[in-house]
Amino acid sequence: MLKIAVLGCGRIGRMHASNIAAHPRARLATVYDIHAPSAEDVAETHGISAAENPESVFSSDDVDAVLIATVTPTHADYIEAAVAAGKPVLCEKPIDLSLARVNACAERVVGKGVPIQIGFNRRFDPSHRAAHDAAAAGEIGDLQQVIITSRDPGMPPRSYCAESGGLFRDMVIHDFDLARFMLGEEPVEVFAIGGRLIDPALMDELDDHDTSMVIMRTASGKQCHINTSRLSTYGYDQRVELLGTDGMVQSLNRKPNEMRRFSANHVEAAEPYLEFFIERYREAFDAEIDAFVDSIENNRQVQVDFEDGRKALVLAEAALKSVAEGRVVRVDEIG
Amino acid sequence: MLKIAVLGCGRIGRMHASNIAAHPRARLATVYDIHAPSAEDVAETHGISAAENPESVFSSDDVDAVLIATVTPTHADYIEAAVAAGKPVLCEKPIDLSLARVNACAERVVGKGVPIQIGFNRRFDPSHRAAHDAAAAGEIGDLQQVIITSRDPGMPPRSYCAESGGLFRDMVIHDFDLARFMLGEEPVEVFAIGGRLIDPALMDELDDHDTSMVIMRTASGKQCHINTSRLSTYGYDQRVELLGTDGMVQSLNRKPNEMRRFSANHVEAAEPYLEFFIERYREAFDAEIDAFVDSIENNRQVQVDFEDGRKALVLAEAALKSVAEGRVVRVDEIG
Amino acid sequence: MLKIAVLGCGRIGRMHASNIAAHPRARLATVYDIHAPSAEDVAETHGISAAENPESVFSSDDVDAVLIATVTPTHADYIEAAVAAGKPVLCEKPIDLSLARVNACAERVVGKGVPIQIGFNRRFDPSHRAAHDAAAAGEIGDLQQVIITSRDPGMPPRSYCAESGGLFRDMVIHDFDLARFMLGEEPVEVFAIGGRLIDPALMDELDDHDTSMVIMRTASGKQCHINTSRLSTYGYDQRVELLGTDGMVQSLNRKPNEMRRFSANHVEAAEPYLEFFIERYREAFDAEIDAFVDSIENNRQVQVDFEDGRKALVLAEAALKSVAEGRVVRVDEIG
Amino acid sequence: MLKIAVLGCGRIGRMHASNIAAHPRARLATVYDIHAPSAEDVAETHGISAAENPESVFSSDDVDAVLIATVTPTHADYIEAAVAAGKPVLCEKPIDLSLARVNACAERVVGKGVPIQIGFNRRFDPSHRAAHDAAAAGEIGDLQQVIITSRDPGMPPRSYCAESGGLFRDMVIHDFDLARFMLGEEPVEVFAIGGRLIDPALMDELDDHDTSMVIMRTASGKQCHINTSRLSTYGYDQRVELLGTDGMVQSLNRKPNEMRRFSANHVEAAEPYLEFFIERYREAFDAEIDAFVDSIENNRQVQVDFEDGRKALVLAEAALKSVAEGRVVRVDEIG
Repeated sequence: MLKIAVLGCGRIGRMHASNIAAHPRARLATVYDIHAPSAEDVAETHGISAAENPESVFSSDDVDAVLIATVTPTHADYIEAAVAAGKPVLCEKPIDLSLARVNACAERVVGKGVPIQIGFNRRFDPSHRAAHDAAAAGEIGDLQQVIITSRDPGMPPRSYCAESGGLFRDMVIHDFDLARFMLGEEPVEVFAIGGRLIDPALMDELDDHDTSMVIMRTASGKQCHINTSRLSTYGYDQRVELLGTDGMVQSLNRKPNEMRRFSANHVEAAEPYLEFFIERYREAFDAEIDAFVDSIENNRQVQVDFEDGRKALVLAEAALKSVAEGRVVRVDEIG
Repeated sequence: MLKIAVLGCGRIGRMHASNIAAHPRARLATVYDIHAPSAEDVAETHGISAAENPESVFSSDDVDAVLIATVTPTHADYIEAAVAAGKPVLCEKPIDLSLARVNACAERVVGKGVPIQIGFNRRFDPSHRAAHDAAAAGEIGDLQQVIITSRDPGMPPRSYCAESGGLFRDMVIHDFDLARFMLGEEPVEVFAIGGRLIDPALMDELDDHDTSMVIMRTASGKQCHINTSRLSTYGYDQRVELLGTDGMVQSLNRKPNEMRRFSANHVEAAEPYLEFFIERYREAFDAEIDAFVDSIENNRQVQVDFEDGRKALVLAEAALKSVAEGRVVRVDEIG
Repeated sequence: MLKIAVLGCGRIGRMHASNIAAHPRARLATVYDIHAPSAEDVAETHGISAAENPESVFSSDDVDAVLIATVTPTHADYIEAAVAAGKPVLCEKPIDLSLARVNACAERVVGKGVPIQIGFNRRFDPSHRAAHDAAAAGEIGDLQQVIITSRDPGMPPRSYCAESGGLFRDMVIHDFDLARFMLGEEPVEVFAIGGRLIDPALMDELDDHDTSMVIMRTASGKQCHINTSRLSTYGYDQRVELLGTDGMVQSLNRKPNEMRRFSANHVEAAEPYLEFFIERYREAFDAEIDAFVDSIENNRQVQVDFEDGRKALVLAEAALKSVAEGRVVRVDEIG
Repeated sequence: MLKIAVLGCGRIGRMHASNIAAHPRARLATVYDIHAPSAEDVAETHGISAAENPESVFSSDDVDAVLIATVTPTHADYIEAAVAAGKPVLCEKPIDLSLARVNACAERVVGKGVPIQIGFNRRFDPSHRAAHDAAAAGEIGDLQQVIITSRDPGMPPRSYCAESGGLFRDMVIHDFDLARFMLGEEPVEVFAIGGRLIDPALMDELDDHDTSMVIMRTASGKQCHINTSRLSTYGYDQRVELLGTDGMVQSLNRKPNEMRRFSANHVEAAEPYLEFFIERYREAFDAEIDAFVDSIENNRQVQVDFEDGRKALVLAEAALKSVAEGRVVRVDEIG
């Protein structure tokens, strides 16, 4: 049984804590949150004790590994602390909003023999994974185009937006990672546009975007498109399409159930898609924990490593530069 | 060019006239209707002359074949007249509402070397046909179950119901024919129930049914279910499902277009199915004419013959007897 | 926390034990199996002790309620013992294969103030439930037809078949219950046919059927069709269709994922449906436990009671009589 | 009856000739082709005479309007001749491969009181049109993103490619027009990439592309993506997606029939999409002729005019410049 501690007891930390507790080969060791009552509440639910500070977690003999789900500015520090303590880490994305900080962190933590997995959960979604694997198995011949649709159900609160790092670093970063996963090779050029079509006043104030389109190209010429919106009234919309010389695969949305309605107004109508990531990616979050446990148990390479986390951020930075300068940005201009 | 005359210029006769006119190897020879202005109107549209009476059609050297789309009580007489004149016939279903009349007609017209095709158009629907052909090609292994769903968009007018011969002889007769086509062997037992769920007052008055369910079994044990309703608010609903030892095929409904709607109320919602048979079975009606022309041109057996028309009526009679007596009826009890 | 004991540690008992352990307001109290190592294995997984005999379970103060997942011949005895001990019961279907035994049991356990829930899990499937609720809310107007498709992925082993009570009592019984749930009123007439199309030799030997079709009618004239097969190569096939005067709802199958394939051979192809009930009805089994806990906690009527279990068996008996005698059987002929 | 002459009797000219002949309010006046036997063949099919030269068509009193389906280099000349003769024109796309030639033509033909319709047939596809109309009716709120997928079934022959003007002017031009139609306002910026992923040798030789992605933005900030490929093994792939503040609509592909296959390999598998534009856009071609006839009959503005033809070419030129220079191109840089 792998004893895993969870740092951060917000919505996503609580979910991870439950998933760890339910995992057949893992145990929830302890939990920590800067807001102690949150940690105590989660601890009580699982019949364990909360930790009083992060340091006690990193130094504890009863902790084999650490899951970091605290606020973004703490991620890099905690990764460094965990690696220093020799404890494998599963860290929520993004590593940091500053590429410089990520690069500095990389020097301290990469190649030290301590596994670091980054929380790009979408790679573990059964439908996305099945599409990836079909393409990887050669079913569609040579991959030519990847098209990713990624739309959140609604604008996050103002406070979240202000701290998020903006649409590209906060939200599209998931799609940049998914694009790399699906393409099977690195994008070398990025072009992006950002729009303010949902809440222009707020986006103007924060110098952020709520709607975007991206085109990327790899060295071998593969093409990738990402479209993103902060508003999808019909539910969380998460699709991937892979076109190859021999065919196509699509990863489509999961519905809350398989009921269909037929009336004088419409036929074959399903209920709106699941609301958001906790519901839609439930199986992916489970599989992510399982992969982490499996990597440590079997001394296997993690499936999404620190460098994956860094490269997704590099693509986000390239996109932001492209938006700012209205031109294609070569990825090697960024890092 | 095969010169075909059309008897009967109601809705379905007009449609057949246009289909014949548009057929590359057929020509609309003349048209007749007991209501002369109807025939003249159709004739004018196609730049031809209307016939003044049916006799002149049967005796005309300018008529190679006859399509009968008049009212049901005239069908058997006209088939007999056409066969006597040596002219191939395509006759709308049913041959007659009386099995005795059909049997008498059979003695006069079957085996006389004159092709007689009955208008069971559904056999020519591309989707139903593809399902049939897939099963016939062995794709689903041994056929075990056939399930037919058949629902009209709404109750026909009182006058139609009164003359129709009732739900089983008028509407389900199409499904009995389709069942025989799909099963590939004869049903030997029929069980049926009839309901009065849509317009009970009218159905009571006419001693008719507006809703029904049927189970049939063939000698080898294949099972078939038909469900029928005179009311489908979401459009004309026409489906067939074939289950075999190696898989299943379904023939589903055609939509008016491939637009889908996504909103806070529903996702993937399509517009209601096509209204009724003229629209839904447009391609089938075309293919039916084409098969008729092909049979005559190439001296090939018609695809739906007089005996098919008779056997569908036998099944309708068996179903009515089953409803009346609340028991399984052996088909050989009827004829 | 409700302390629930599980009797029977076969495949389904193990699943229930895990679901109870994962339930936020329930606790797995103990487990028992006639084969002690099975119980010990499950107990160890959950860090609890196995019971040495059923009696100790029924008499234990640490057991608030009992889930019965033992072999069918023990069900009625254990229900009686649990009720005698005042412990609420969730019992897998069927109550017993003998209607006489069920009736005798009913006299001892019904109306004694002890909740008894029968394991007709399908009522809790999110898609079936959504269809039921939409109809119950009046969305489709007056319900007219219910069509249930129910096909197992493959023939069970000979040993299972021999003990099962036959297709109607073992498998279609689920569909009889679902039909009652969907119809919202009692069937009064049953007609059924049974076929031997998959393994005729075995079915002949056991005097059983592997394929069936049923038609039922309620007092108010609602019509219901059930088709069943022991063999569905494309996965477990579980569908319900409800037709009403204002529209239709369907509850369709869940796919393992939402990946679709497009090639020169086909488009929009999904992977075969989930293999069997443990996977397909996973959410339903969860919800079933949750409903049981909720009933006890809040002193609410169970959603599927003893009489539901009895009535489904009555319909199975009516179907068997109909198959044997080739006629419609009135439900009040049975019980 | 509007008497329409068809210039050009290749595959598409023949189809238009048949559609005109079948139109209830139009008549096929005459046909011309530089290869006389082709024209004579079509003329014979329709029982009319072929014209010996284009001049005789333009000057004939028996010709009310002209449909131009000859090779592209003749389009502008014939449009000019038709307008000089006062005959309404329906001209296949593109007007010309040279924007300068198109501009010169515009000066001679636009605003002369003679209707000129350009053959952007996709606007008339029932599914695309339904999506457009739903958005125009406000169903999805404010339009934010348009995503167009456009994939031909296979590479055209070398000879076609060499004369075509290249991927953007020949094929994507349809999508540029569709984008303008769907956006409801003009794109002001274009970014495009072109790839050589299907037949790199041929594409290198012709300095052409076989795969592309485009992003466009309108003045108000609406975003549009187009992805294109010359190779789609699963049939002609033509989709449009419109995202708005209140919902989404999609226009999806039409299947050859509604048969679905279920086996141990896959479920819900449909047959590959229709092969190419003649089949897929059959209804659109019909509706295009109908709209042309209607415009002339009722003195109504044509639905796709010369300026629409010119603007689609401007966008193609902007895309080509973007590909060449690796930057966003403002549409007003082109014309």
